Amino acid sequence: MRIVRTVADLRAALAPVRGSGSVGLVPTMGALHDGHLELARQARADNDAVVLSIFVNPTQFNDPSDLAAYPRDEGKDVDLAASVGVDYVFAPEVTEVYPPGFSATVTLHGPIVEALEGAHRGVGHFQGVTTVVAKLFGMVSPDRAYFGQKDAQQVRVVQAMVADLNIPTQIVVVSTVREPDGLAMSSRNRRLSPFDRARAAHVAEALRAAELAAAGGISDAWSLLHSARKVLTDNAIDVEYLELVDADTFRPIPVLVTGPAVLAVAVVIGGTRLIDNVVLRQGSAS
Amino acid sequence: MRIVRTVADLRAALAPVRGSGSVGLVPTMGALHDGHLELARQARADNDAVVLSIFVNPTQFNDPSDLAAYPRDEGKDVDLAASVGVDYVFAPEVTEVYPPGFSATVTLHGPIVEALEGAHRGVGHFQGVTTVVAKLFGMVSPDRAYFGQKDAQQVRVVQAMVADLNIPTQIVVVSTVREPDGLAMSSRNRRLSPFDRARAAHVAEALRAAELAAAGGISDAWSLLHSARKVLTDNAIDVEYLELVDADTFRPIPVLVTGPAVLAVAVVIGGTRLIDNVVLRQGSAS
Repeated sequence: MRIVRTVADLRAALAPVRGSGSVGLVPTMGALHDGHLELARQARADNDAVVLSIFVNPTQFNDPSDLAAYPRDEGKDVDLAASVGVDYVFAPEVTEVYPPGFSATVTLHGPIVEALEGAHRGVGHFQGVTTVVAKLFGMVSPDRAYFGQKDAQQVRVVQAMVADLNIPTQIVVVSTVREPDGLAMSSRNRRLSPFDRARAAHVAEALRAAELAAAGGISDAWSLLHSARKVLTDNAIDVEYLELVDADTFRPIPVLVTGPAVLAVAVVIGGTRLIDNVVLRQGSAS
Repeated sequence: MRIVRTVADLRAALAPVRGSGSVGLVPTMGALHDGHLELARQARADNDAVVLSIFVNPTQFNDPSDLAAYPRDEGKDVDLAASVGVDYVFAPEVTEVYPPGFSATVTLHGPIVEALEGAHRGVGHFQGVTTVVAKLFGMVSPDRAYFGQKDAQQVRVVQAMVADLNIPTQIVVVSTVREPDGLAMSSRNRRLSPFDRARAAHVAEALRAAELAAAGGISDAWSLLHSARKVLTDNAIDVEYLELVDADTFRPIPVLVTGPAVLAVAVVIGGTRLIDNVVLRQGSAS
């Protein structure tokens, strides 16, 4: 496995594969966990060459202290990437991605960027995401790119960007990988104290409660939200948002769930912000 | 030569060329003239497959009447494209380019989009250009794309976008093609009455006066602008702007020309807006 720092080196490395074979990209911000590795395993199974990018993108952080505190351990990440068969770790410096004079933004509009994370992290968050992902797609020209369902809104935003800009990359969505107690894998989990780590399991428990309610035939938004909110409230979890939105448009579902819906939650536990979600399909447990 | 209407058909048609050969794209808004054909000839010489797109992009028109009046003659365009060896005319409907729910914009910032055309047609103009060109590049994945120097600012904006978004397409800039009296070829020229057509030659004459002054060693911005403005004023041409800007940044040159500079002009003659430019290099006639 090779570590590549520049776009020119990356393109040169991938040139022999083009035309004859396919390239898979796993975009990450490092601090790899089993969720990332699952993306990489899927990429490995689907493609001739696999690139895993590690770039803590400053433009998608609304909070400078969150950016500063974001965990970084490239040596360990490189070992993990190698262990699942990644061919290239692309780990550029910030100036390689945003050189002096850089001025482009890729922006989507509407509920998919304004709801949930957009409302709570600011509209700049998804603008940072779409711009850097468009750039990574330009750098790598991947046939497929792998994103985790854990960031459901990000997945939807990237899918919309790829459709709107006619980017010839297939977006592959990989199921959320969870700890044994249900907690969704996240680089931020390692910031939790043992006490808070135990409490964090209630987030998945709350989503599971709504999922079971939906599986049991409940389709009114108020009841589904209530079943999740009760778990969080009973465990004194600080909820930033808990919303039920249409899985395609990310508009809030006001009354009844009639199609695929995302129940998305953001909480703050011990100063660490965590998000999770579940897709609800009426009468089905997943 | 084939006429293609959809992105899917275009990609299918180009698939056999990928990997083994190169694809050249000539983006146009139709109403082809010898300037476009020169782009297509260059693309033909450089590439294995040549796509000429015809799409009158509504999002880059600030003036609905200008959009409505924009000349369209696809039958003639197709014949002209065939005559210079184009392989595919890509002429999509507006809904193929902007389907329902489309919401993306690609935006640059700073003088290259705010000066000259940006100031006079509104910042939405170049946002329309960068968004549709990014989409065309996504649709076609061209190895090279061909743009005319006549739209100097557009060329610079597209170059910046490609650099900023790491789009793997080489931008080839082709010299302005002129009528025997110097008038830069433009689809808008056909709107001019015979009387206005004759007057329009003074635009190139004005630029040529400044070019000769620069070639003669004059490097102060005021004198260069004056030499051009005098020709326009003497001929009662209605000037929208006449500016001398740095060729890289498009910032106005306040005092002395020390590097490549663009002298850019926009005029309105008989209700038709025309633009032209010349690159000034001190002590050189072109």
